[in-house]
Amino acid sequence: MELLPNEVIEDLGEGFRIIQNKSMFCYGTDAAMLADFIVAKPKEKLIDLCSGNGIIPILLCKKTRCNNIISFEIQNEVCDLTKRSVKLNNLSERIAVVNGDLRKIKDFYECGNFDVVTCNPPYMPEGTGKANISESVTIARHEIMCNLEDVITSSAYLLKNGGRLYMVHRAERLADIIYLMRTKNLQPKRMTFVAAHPEKEPSLVLIEAQKDRKSGLIITKPIYANI
Amino acid sequence: MELLPNEVIEDLGEGFRIIQNKSMFCYGTDAAMLADFIVAKPKEKLIDLCSGNGIIPILLCKKTRCNNIISFEIQNEVCDLTKRSVKLNNLSERIAVVNGDLRKIKDFYECGNFDVVTCNPPYMPEGTGKANISESVTIARHEIMCNLEDVITSSAYLLKNGGRLYMVHRAERLADIIYLMRTKNLQPKRMTFVAAHPEKEPSLVLIEAQKDRKSGLIITKPIYANI
Repeated sequence: MELLPNEVIEDLGEGFRIIQNKSMFCYGTDAAMLADFIVAKPKEKLIDLCSGNGIIPILLCKKTRCNNIISFEIQNEVCDLTKRSVKLNNLSERIAVVNGDLRKIKDFYECGNFDVVTCNPPYMPEGTGKANISESVTIARHEIMCNLEDVITSSAYLLKNGGRLYMVHRAERLADIIYLMRTKNLQPKRMTFVAAHPEKEPSLVLIEAQKDRKSGLIITKPIYANI
Repeated sequence: MELLPNEVIEDLGEGFRIIQNKSMFCYGTDAAMLADFIVAKPKEKLIDLCSGNGIIPILLCKKTRCNNIISFEIQNEVCDLTKRSVKLNNLSERIAVVNGDLRKIKDFYECGNFDVVTCNPPYMPEGTGKANISESVTIARHEIMCNLEDVITSSAYLLKNGGRLYMVHRAERLADIIYLMRTKNLQPKRMTFVAAHPEKEPSLVLIEAQKDRKSGLIITKPIYANI
């Protein structure tokens, strides 16, 4: 496969690979942790929002036997990259890449169409943090094209009753995440904090929420990792 | 001071003491942790809800120079115990013991009257857990005379804008706590989890919320303690 300028192929193990473009957003440890955290059965219908270069769908193909996964991403040129990664892995039968705006999710799918929604959304409010190397990276990292409420609202719309949302975010956003989920009938069910080590405050939170279910949360032991 | 049957005097250090009645609810490590977690300035007006034998107000007298603290408790015989502990410590000028039902808090205080509300509420939903040695202990441990929503609703009522609520609860109730706080205009600001050790899931959460303030949460490093 021919690569474009700034592109490299990264090995994901067990024969899986991904094309990364150094001028676009490159996935981090948080995406790998989210993929580890997700539970999905073979027959379930999955959609990954803010999918970027498709790292979550590809890792889910590696981890599960799911073959009905949508990689949903707003940036057209990022979708092109993802499509080539899907081809590179021979995953065209399992992953469909869709270029779209999740704020207009109703134009794409019926309500309650999915068993599982996954999302590694932009973490930073618009206008915060340091400058990025490209507009593409800025869109991936900042809440410009969608914010937390958009992500949770569209996830709640996409999920069937009992369906699950898996998300990773900064731990400091936890109160916003839980409040927004509960207002959209998504019940936080499992939560794992990520901290650099046991004497450090958690930096990230992994969260599983279930649509239209009763209260009942399990907070697992933390993950220790330098991210 | 004469003690009644089942009563013992416990040393809290630095000359502070508390009377405990073995047939009533005896405070645990969680109360001591909550007292450690609370920040209060000398001139502030404090109220401790579900105050039990007054452990939080007495520990706050030990820790701070606050002298305007109300110990608010529904069980009359527990209030009697607290009054004698207050006397034993010569704290009558600093702690007032009030017997009342927090579900009727409007009959006791004006809205926005307090700088700080503290609460170590009953943890367990009504009808769960093992039987207790007395009705008094059952009321202290179970959501019979008040539930989480009652506690948060009355706290929001009592606090002035910018005032702080300090609460300890089971970690598994976190989603309910955050959601209820946010619906009552209480913003979670600081959170500390308590776990037996770094490889265990957290069992308790200490939480500080501020009335009528913007989102912005700090999750501190955890406390490790066997409770």
